[in-house]
Amino acid sequence: MSQGVVAPKGFRAAGVIAGLKTSGASDLALVVNDGPRFDAAGVFTRNKVKAAPVLWSQQVLTTGQLRAVVLNSGGANACTGPEGFQTAHATAEKAAELLGCGAIEVAVCSTGLIGRQLPRDLVLAGVEKAAAGLADSAAAGLAAATAIMTTDTVAKQAVHSDQAGWSIGGTTKGAGMIAPSMATMLSVLTTDAVLEPAALDAALRAAVRVSFDRLDVDGSMSTNDTVLLLASGASGVTPAAEEFTAALTAVCQDLARQMQADAEGVTKRITVRVTGAADEDDAVTIARTVARDSLVKTAIFGSDANWGRIAAAVGYSDAEVDPDRLDVTINDALLCKGGVAAGGRTDADLSGKDVLVEIELGIGTGTAEIRTTDLSHGYVEENSAYPT
Amino acid sequence: MSQGVVAPKGFRAAGVIAGLKTSGASDLALVVNDGPRFDAAGVFTRNKVKAAPVLWSQQVLTTGQLRAVVLNSGGANACTGPEGFQTAHATAEKAAELLGCGAIEVAVCSTGLIGRQLPRDLVLAGVEKAAAGLADSAAAGLAAATAIMTTDTVAKQAVHSDQAGWSIGGTTKGAGMIAPSMATMLSVLTTDAVLEPAALDAALRAAVRVSFDRLDVDGSMSTNDTVLLLASGASGVTPAAEEFTAALTAVCQDLARQMQADAEGVTKRITVRVTGAADEDDAVTIARTVARDSLVKTAIFGSDANWGRIAAAVGYSDAEVDPDRLDVTINDALLCKGGVAAGGRTDADLSGKDVLVEIELGIGTGTAEIRTTDLSHGYVEENSAYPT
Repeated sequence: MSQGVVAPKGFRAAGVIAGLKTSGASDLALVVNDGPRFDAAGVFTRNKVKAAPVLWSQQVLTTGQLRAVVLNSGGANACTGPEGFQTAHATAEKAAELLGCGAIEVAVCSTGLIGRQLPRDLVLAGVEKAAAGLADSAAAGLAAATAIMTTDTVAKQAVHSDQAGWSIGGTTKGAGMIAPSMATMLSVLTTDAVLEPAALDAALRAAVRVSFDRLDVDGSMSTNDTVLLLASGASGVTPAAEEFTAALTAVCQDLARQMQADAEGVTKRITVRVTGAADEDDAVTIARTVARDSLVKTAIFGSDANWGRIAAAVGYSDAEVDPDRLDVTINDALLCKGGVAAGGRTDADLSGKDVLVEIELGIGTGTAEIRTTDLSHGYVEENSAYPT
Repeated sequence: MSQGVVAPKGFRAAGVIAGLKTSGASDLALVVNDGPRFDAAGVFTRNKVKAAPVLWSQQVLTTGQLRAVVLNSGGANACTGPEGFQTAHATAEKAAELLGCGAIEVAVCSTGLIGRQLPRDLVLAGVEKAAAGLADSAAAGLAAATAIMTTDTVAKQAVHSDQAGWSIGGTTKGAGMIAPSMATMLSVLTTDAVLEPAALDAALRAAVRVSFDRLDVDGSMSTNDTVLLLASGASGVTPAAEEFTAALTAVCQDLARQMQADAEGVTKRITVRVTGAADEDDAVTIARTVARDSLVKTAIFGSDANWGRIAAAVGYSDAEVDPDRLDVTINDALLCKGGVAAGGRTDADLSGKDVLVEIELGIGTGTAEIRTTDLSHGYVEENSAYPT
C-alpha cells in the first residue's frame, strides 16, 4: 500500500518544479480528491497576520467541501496585500478550470519567505504541469510530499490502514506546529472513510490538539500554518467517531514525531511530560513553558541535566505550582524531590539523542506531554543564514 | 564622587573572596547603611519557585527597614529546602551580630547554580571578612559590584547626584531582569535622601517597571531576582516624589543598559519600540513578543532585516493587531507599510552593533520599548557549557 496522501482510495497527487525556489528543487504540489464525496475540514494558524492562502482557504472551508489543494514552497505569499490574495485566488481558479470544478472547492497553501509576491505566472504554469501529472502511485505521493519541503531534510508521510476497509494517509512539512510554530507547518490528510464535514472537523481538532499542537520547537507561530483533511468516501465505510479520531490522532502524532526528528538544528529530541498538575490546561502550560525555555534547551544541547533551570521554568509558568511538591526526573534519574536536590546531576545520562523530562507537580491529576528539541549551534546557524 | 552603592552619604561596602566560586574570584559582598535612617523597599522575582534568600528578604522587607544586605555569587541557594533557608537566616544573623543590629534588619541575596547547598561555614566566614573591610571608598563600592558578578564580564555601577544635595547610587549583576530574566538579576540601590518606606516602594516599583522590567534577554525568569533600595537620610533632604522617581528611573535604566550590553553572547543590542498600540499594556506585550522571538533574534544575529519574522511575531502576540495597518521600520528603513513590503530588506543597514526595530500599529496611542539582544552562537555556547 502506498504511503501518504494517495494511500486512501479516491486520491491522486503530483509534485513538480514550478521555478519558485531558487535552488531549482520541486516546489508545487497538487492533491486531488476524485470522490465520490468531497467532505473536508481544516485547522489554520491563530496568527492575526494571516497569509493570503490562509485567508482564501478559510473561506473555502466554510463550505465543508474540498476537491483539491494546491501547495507551494518557495514563497509564503504573506504580507502581500490584495495582489497576494489575487494570486491565491487565481491559483485556485486555474486548478478548478483544469479539474472541472469551482474555485471555491480548491484550497491553497504556501510556505517560504514572508513579504514577497509569488510570481503568479510560474505558479499557474506549475498548477497546469501538476494537473497533467496526477497519479495515485507511491511515487506521486512522494513527489507531492517532497514539493512542499523547505528546510526539511526528508519528506514526511504516514498512513493508517483499517481492517474495516478504510484508511487515512497524510503528509506534512515544517519543523514546527500549528500554534506556535517554528517554520510554517503545512499538512494534508486524506481518508476514504465516509464522514460528514462536522464529524471530520471534530476529529481533526481533537487529533491536532494532542499532536501538532503538542510539538513546540521555539514558540514562534507562523502566518501560514494549515492542516487540511479531505474525505473521498471511496471505501463506502463509515467508522465510529472514536475509532476514526483515534486513527487520525495516531497519524498526526506519527507526522509530528517526524517533524520533531527533522527540526532545524536538532541534536536532541526532548519530551517534557507533566503529571500531577491541577488540570490538563495547567499541565500543557507548564510543559510548554519548560519546552520553550532557552536555558533548558541550551543545557540539554550541552548534555547537562540542569534540573534547576527546569524548576525555575516550572516556577514562572502561568499555572498552579507548589514548589515544595515538585519532583523532576530526567531520563529515569530522580534529580529533584519535593523541590530539593535528590541526587547528582551526573546521575542522568543525556548522552543519547532522546531526553525525557518528567515533572510531577503533586497537586492534581492533570497530565500532558510536549515534544521539543534542543537549542543548538545548528539552530542559530540555519536561522541566521536563511535566506541569505 | 564615588560610583555605585557608596556614592550616597551614609553607606559602606565591601567585596571579598569567601571561597564559594571554584574560580577563586571574589564572591561575597556586604552593603551597610549607617543611617541615620534605615528606610527600605524591595522588588522580588514573581517566580513561584523562590530561592531561600528571596523568602528571607521578603520577610525582612515587610518592616520597611534595612540596615544591611549580604550578597553572594557562586550559588543560588534555591531548591535547597529548610537547610537552605537556615543558611540564609544564619547569614543575616552573622551580619547582624557584627553590625550590632537584628537579623530581621539584614537582607540576603544569592546567585549561581540552583539546587546545591551553600557551604554555610564559608559564607559566615566571608561575612566576617567583609564586615572587617567595610569602607565608603570607590574601591569598596567596586569590590562589592565585582563580588556579585557571575557570567558578567564587567562590574556595573551608576550614580545620580542631585543639585539639592542628595544622590542615588546603584550596582547590578546579571544579563537579565526582574521578570523575566536570563540569569539572576540582583541590584542594590542606595540613597541619602529622606524618604518613608511607602514613598521608596512607590518610586522603586515605578522605576523598575520601565527599566529592568523592559529588558528581556530570553524570556526566562530567575528564582532569585531581587532589587533593593536603601535610604540613609544622611543628606537631610526630602526630594519631591516625582523628582526622586525620575532620578531613580534614570539610574535603573543606566544599569539596565549596562546589563543589555553585557548580556551572554550578545553581538547586537536591539531596541524594539512599539507605537500606536491600543494601550501601553498592548505595546509592552507586542514589543516583548518580538524581543523574545528566536527567529527574529537569529535573523538579527545574521544582520538580516527579516521584517516578515517581525510581522509574524506581532501577529501571534496576545494584543490587538490590525495586519493591514502594520508598519515595520528597521534602523530608519521602512520595510513594511500597511502590512505589505515597502522596500528591499537590504535597505536596512544592520552591520553595526545597535539595531532599532520600530513597529507602528496604527490603532491607538500606546507606546513601549523593550531592550533585548540577538541569539548568537555565543549564547548557545555559554549556556550549554555553564557550568560544565
